[in-house]
Amino acid sequence: MSVNPDQFLRSLFDAAVAAADPGLSIPSVLPERPAGRVLVVGGGKASARMAQAVESCWGPCEGLVIVPHGSVLPTQGIEIVEGAHPVPDAAGSAAASRMLDMVSNVQEGDLVLCLISGGGSSLMAAPGAGLSLADKQAVNAALLASGAPISDMNVVRKHLSSIKGGRLAAAAYPAKVITLTISDVPGDDMSIIASGPTVPDPSSAKDARDIIERYQLDLPKAVQDFIISEAAETPDPGHPVFTDAQSFMVAAPQASLLAAAKVAKDHGITPILLGDALEGEAAELGKAMAGIAASCLRHGHPVKGPAVLISGGETTVTVRDKAGAGGRNTEFLLSFALNAPEGISAIACDTDGIDGKSDAAGGIWTPDIAKAAAALDGKAFLAGHDSYNFFGPAGGLVITGPTHTNVNDFRAVFIP
Amino acid sequence: MSVNPDQFLRSLFDAAVAAADPGLSIPSVLPERPAGRVLVVGGGKASARMAQAVESCWGPCEGLVIVPHGSVLPTQGIEIVEGAHPVPDAAGSAAASRMLDMVSNVQEGDLVLCLISGGGSSLMAAPGAGLSLADKQAVNAALLASGAPISDMNVVRKHLSSIKGGRLAAAAYPAKVITLTISDVPGDDMSIIASGPTVPDPSSAKDARDIIERYQLDLPKAVQDFIISEAAETPDPGHPVFTDAQSFMVAAPQASLLAAAKVAKDHGITPILLGDALEGEAAELGKAMAGIAASCLRHGHPVKGPAVLISGGETTVTVRDKAGAGGRNTEFLLSFALNAPEGISAIACDTDGIDGKSDAAGGIWTPDIAKAAAALDGKAFLAGHDSYNFFGPAGGLVITGPTHTNVNDFRAVFIP
Repeated sequence: MSVNPDQFLRSLFDAAVAAADPGLSIPSVLPERPAGRVLVVGGGKASARMAQAVESCWGPCEGLVIVPHGSVLPTQGIEIVEGAHPVPDAAGSAAASRMLDMVSNVQEGDLVLCLISGGGSSLMAAPGAGLSLADKQAVNAALLASGAPISDMNVVRKHLSSIKGGRLAAAAYPAKVITLTISDVPGDDMSIIASGPTVPDPSSAKDARDIIERYQLDLPKAVQDFIISEAAETPDPGHPVFTDAQSFMVAAPQASLLAAAKVAKDHGITPILLGDALEGEAAELGKAMAGIAASCLRHGHPVKGPAVLISGGETTVTVRDKAGAGGRNTEFLLSFALNAPEGISAIACDTDGIDGKSDAAGGIWTPDIAKAAAALDGKAFLAGHDSYNFFGPAGGLVITGPTHTNVNDFRAVFIP
Repeated sequence: MSVNPDQFLRSLFDAAVAAADPGLSIPSVLPERPAGRVLVVGGGKASARMAQAVESCWGPCEGLVIVPHGSVLPTQGIEIVEGAHPVPDAAGSAAASRMLDMVSNVQEGDLVLCLISGGGSSLMAAPGAGLSLADKQAVNAALLASGAPISDMNVVRKHLSSIKGGRLAAAAYPAKVITLTISDVPGDDMSIIASGPTVPDPSSAKDARDIIERYQLDLPKAVQDFIISEAAETPDPGHPVFTDAQSFMVAAPQASLLAAAKVAKDHGITPILLGDALEGEAAELGKAMAGIAASCLRHGHPVKGPAVLISGGETTVTVRDKAGAGGRNTEFLLSFALNAPEGISAIACDTDGIDGKSDAAGGIWTPDIAKAAAALDGKAFLAGHDSYNFFGPAGGLVITGPTHTNVNDFRAVFIP
């Protein structure tokens, strides 16, 4: 059977995003609303939509969640505050302090429901005692420039916070804590997603100090003092709040990849899932994926067409000179396009709808777009990290606006 | 069933190398020795072993092949000359001139048998008439500094040679030409392997001039004069020597991957072939492969263990500061080891037996080697491009010496 690669690939991405919609999954996992006081808190790219889903089950709730600028949705009772991502701002930070205050005033028998999703780490930035937002911003800037993996970044952040690494849960004690989480990290580790404000922290302040040393991070004096103080340590995993806590994963990358795979199967196209956590330089992963696609076309391995190679995860773009416009998904896709054989199509988008700092979710590459881009010097756009301005004129941008969820990147390569 | 990962992975690599041994494949494709005069020529990393294989079928032959320093093997009649790779030297260049003279003196009814393998392009460097080796070296330096892709570089080189781009075959006319080739390039394109001395050249001298102009190459006066002369044109694809010529691919990357896959199947382990031409930065491909392996372990996609992910191709190591010791295969493997989940094993070796400039073919990573390496700071070794000195103390080097064949890199990842 013959498919239109543009429509087909967009339908896979749509299915991946739909599968991550908390409006679908929360009603099936949320327990009955308890009789006592309920406080709903949290933060992240998906947290407004999560708040809506909770209120659709429980009716109006008291609470506060923090979402990225432009991601507000109407709610019945829960306050939605906008903050900045990936670098924290004063609005998010002030809201996080208010959230901590609210949580600190609940009683035994009350319930704190925490809505956590990717991005929550910077949105709920509450610096440790004695640290300023400027200190945390300096830390973030140093981390982003260091080339440290996101997991290492989060270890450092956790130990400079009054909310991350289980501290939010500890503040809520003796109330019961239930956490609903949407994963955007490899292995769906809840202690990593949004820096795990309600789960025990497996890392120690010493781990954070080791990372600071390994990447030779240049940090403000107040941060250097804090990280060697007792306040830097996160709550003990034996803390009683963790014993009684419950948590539910309401969306995760692999579930979204599987949803896309099902759409492919329904079209008679063989899906191959290569992984929900492929990382590394976007352009280099583009080359590797082009090599796998070429092998499918040439040798029928790992799969004969019609087939689709599906993957997720979060790549990196390391900028050595000046950066143009473009996120990691269009950078991946441009490198893929430059290295793949003719006739192969692909889509690469961030499931949150925002690729890097652009207004596109990502891009799509088909034979038609290849024709439209024939006069463009793709190598020059890639070298300048300017993939947005390559796909724009070629008609290859995918625009969705914020999707109000986030299970990281989605990539699909269609072998005809 | 349970396998020893070290033995198992080494047996896959051995099978891949054995499948590329021209001693196995040449007897099955080589026609009967003709009654007339036979001249055996050629060059490349595998060409000494190819010459041996020919003489094992045909007995002592007249001829000359050029191989890298240290790759000589005993032959009965065919002269083996050592030259330099990847930068041509005077020894290789003088031998290439002699080879051209020999070929130019054959008659109708004679046979020229050409033994081509990777590395032949620099080993058989014969500058066009009026050009010196220094001119060619200046061209190479300008090309390498230009940022031109390897395909463009080869178009320019072909038109400044008296041997590449079908010229060796044309010089042999009216003798018949048979070519035996071992591929080390994506797509196994015979006009690319060793710059195709016996096959028609799809590019023209005008293409070469366009590339020189596009990249504004600063070239010696003699080269500028040559490239606009008639001598720059490679033989017309309609030249009668090509009509009668025959060629056989006696080894190629995919055949070696398939041979390794068969060994895995015989052990009850599912092989997945990811591609015979995976390229890009070695360390980044290591991350991608670790991500795929993690997905196998965590989700059973793309394959449930016990399974092995097999791939080939040629990665790159871009050194920005100073380089330590280590080739692209151990660099790939170290990055893989740093990013893969515990319990996964892998091997990465160059099928020619020489990874980079080291004395190892590559490396192997198993739980035992992980234990032996526990005290080593793998990230520091990787950052210093010093992977050889990581695997050495850990007992993870694979040492074979020159294998006298070359179907590029071999990688296998074992998912228990």
